[in-house]
Amino acid sequence: MSQTRYPTLIEDGESILILDQTRLPREAVMLRLVSLEDAAHAIRVMRVRGAPLIGATAAYGVALGLADAADDARLNQVIDTLAATRPTAVNLHWALERMRRVLKNSALVTRRDTAWKEARAIATEDKAANAAIGQHGLALLQARQQSGRSINVMTHCNAGRLATVDNGTALAPVYAAHAAGLPVHVWVSETRPRNQGLLTAWELSEAGVPHTLIADNAAGLMMMQGKVDLVIVGADRIAANGDTANKVGTYLKALAARAHGVPFYVAAPLSTIDFDCPSGVEIPIEERAAEELGAGDTPVANPAFDVTPADLIGGIVSERGIVGAGQLGQWKT
Amino acid sequence: MSQTRYPTLIEDGESILILDQTRLPREAVMLRLVSLEDAAHAIRVMRVRGAPLIGATAAYGVALGLADAADDARLNQVIDTLAATRPTAVNLHWALERMRRVLKNSALVTRRDTAWKEARAIATEDKAANAAIGQHGLALLQARQQSGRSINVMTHCNAGRLATVDNGTALAPVYAAHAAGLPVHVWVSETRPRNQGLLTAWELSEAGVPHTLIADNAAGLMMMQGKVDLVIVGADRIAANGDTANKVGTYLKALAARAHGVPFYVAAPLSTIDFDCPSGVEIPIEERAAEELGAGDTPVANPAFDVTPADLIGGIVSERGIVGAGQLGQWKT
Repeated sequence: MSQTRYPTLIEDGESILILDQTRLPREAVMLRLVSLEDAAHAIRVMRVRGAPLIGATAAYGVALGLADAADDARLNQVIDTLAATRPTAVNLHWALERMRRVLKNSALVTRRDTAWKEARAIATEDKAANAAIGQHGLALLQARQQSGRSINVMTHCNAGRLATVDNGTALAPVYAAHAAGLPVHVWVSETRPRNQGLLTAWELSEAGVPHTLIADNAAGLMMMQGKVDLVIVGADRIAANGDTANKVGTYLKALAARAHGVPFYVAAPLSTIDFDCPSGVEIPIEERAAEELGAGDTPVANPAFDVTPADLIGGIVSERGIVGAGQLGQWKT
Repeated sequence: MSQTRYPTLIEDGESILILDQTRLPREAVMLRLVSLEDAAHAIRVMRVRGAPLIGATAAYGVALGLADAADDARLNQVIDTLAATRPTAVNLHWALERMRRVLKNSALVTRRDTAWKEARAIATEDKAANAAIGQHGLALLQARQQSGRSINVMTHCNAGRLATVDNGTALAPVYAAHAAGLPVHVWVSETRPRNQGLLTAWELSEAGVPHTLIADNAAGLMMMQGKVDLVIVGADRIAANGDTANKVGTYLKALAARAHGVPFYVAAPLSTIDFDCPSGVEIPIEERAAEELGAGDTPVANPAFDVTPADLIGGIVSERGIVGAGQLGQWKT
């Protein structure tokens, strides 16, 4: 990819700069976050979004919230503030618990430095995990390749580089295939009500990957017409049994994929797996503001996620490889 | 319903007035159509929409296009112009063929009057057919009633009074239930990319029927959560084997309904059944302009309809009653 692209998150040990995703694709604007409140607000209003990027931003949010020699009370307050921003993406809680664990065991006097260092580690590991997802997932695309035509991948929402510190999750295999010279084309779902499909189209365009935007409603027809070789989506929380919460609408794509024998995969770093959550029923589903649908006074329900049962998922791709959705136990550390 | 509501189509034997559905729900504006070109344009750009209303408007379009004593060449030209406006809704072709048959057999000197009379008959019959659909469909809602709670109906697109001359198709049973004092609540899908769900919300609000708007993506979650008692949709063309073309996204709802044991019904007048079309594969799917998705230069695919296989449809409700989707033959005249 071009070196001039806008990063999703960079930092200098004092503050962080994020790409404001509420202004994409209209304009690419980097925003400076200097405080805990800045970070919490950016996550809440989806200036940063995507489960892995939320996790990394929250880790930096802890660093921004801690003065030198912050005590445990302040640490807990900072973490509680960030934990309350969004309920479904478990990477947020995973990152915050990791920060809490490391910082509780660190000397007060160096807590601020330790926080920056650990946040940096989380960000670095996210990039690496996603690159590994790309390599593991590449095999899925290669398996669907037919001579003389592109491999048609359908995705939902944005689980590309914009949803991560870098490299993407669902799109990582697409980028790996593109880099390997495989012809690949992506069906991009609009993803109402927030239109994150436009973010996916934006980053695919930046990377030179052919793609076509469709209304979310068109996914079933595309599969019925044989225009989809495989579906890859990201995840906001994967329960221990493989049930997967992801952007609302994912489940409908999984049902259509099953009806037409199209392989359906979830790509996510291990930090997205919540082994403490037995199944999808226990995953909290965030209800967001009615205003997102832009329908004035009309009564609105606006769940941001849905749950795809494990039995509709052909496999889960993480930095460790690919396993069946019912076989996640082997990744439990 | 209130007597002050805006009709979808009225006429005075010289011109017709239509409610411009591209301006709803922002403003209710009646537009006068005085020529064949006016009528064809209004159908093409969806100022009038909904399969039954398209049929009636096309019939009036024939009347608008015929001068006194118009010959067969002109008649064919008028019909061809209207037939080319939209490919999927078969009611358009049904109405035009009915007009052609009647007019070919009518004296040249009275053709214009005959055309107005026949268009009026089509419009009157549409109202009556939809009222009958409401009465037949009412039984489906009554069967799902549970004490102490509303009957939750999910629909897609707009198949209400706005899609017809009056009374609606999918919403006719809802209106019948509301009139009978049954507690009913409608889940209204936004219906991207044209947002006809906002038309449904508008007319339900006008009629005082409780409803909630959702993103199309949320339909699967709602069914998984047990919030939907039955799904009723309209149709743009029903093939002889019961496969049904309706607004894109209908198929995804049918798949979700099947997954959760939610009854799924199609409500449409007999004029929507195309006995010459053996199955869904033969139904032409209209591809509409990329601009409807509002995504600038992004490549777009924008099919306006999809096909729900007969085996996902619990029954088809017409003015004749309710039959299984595979049993349409008994309605063939």
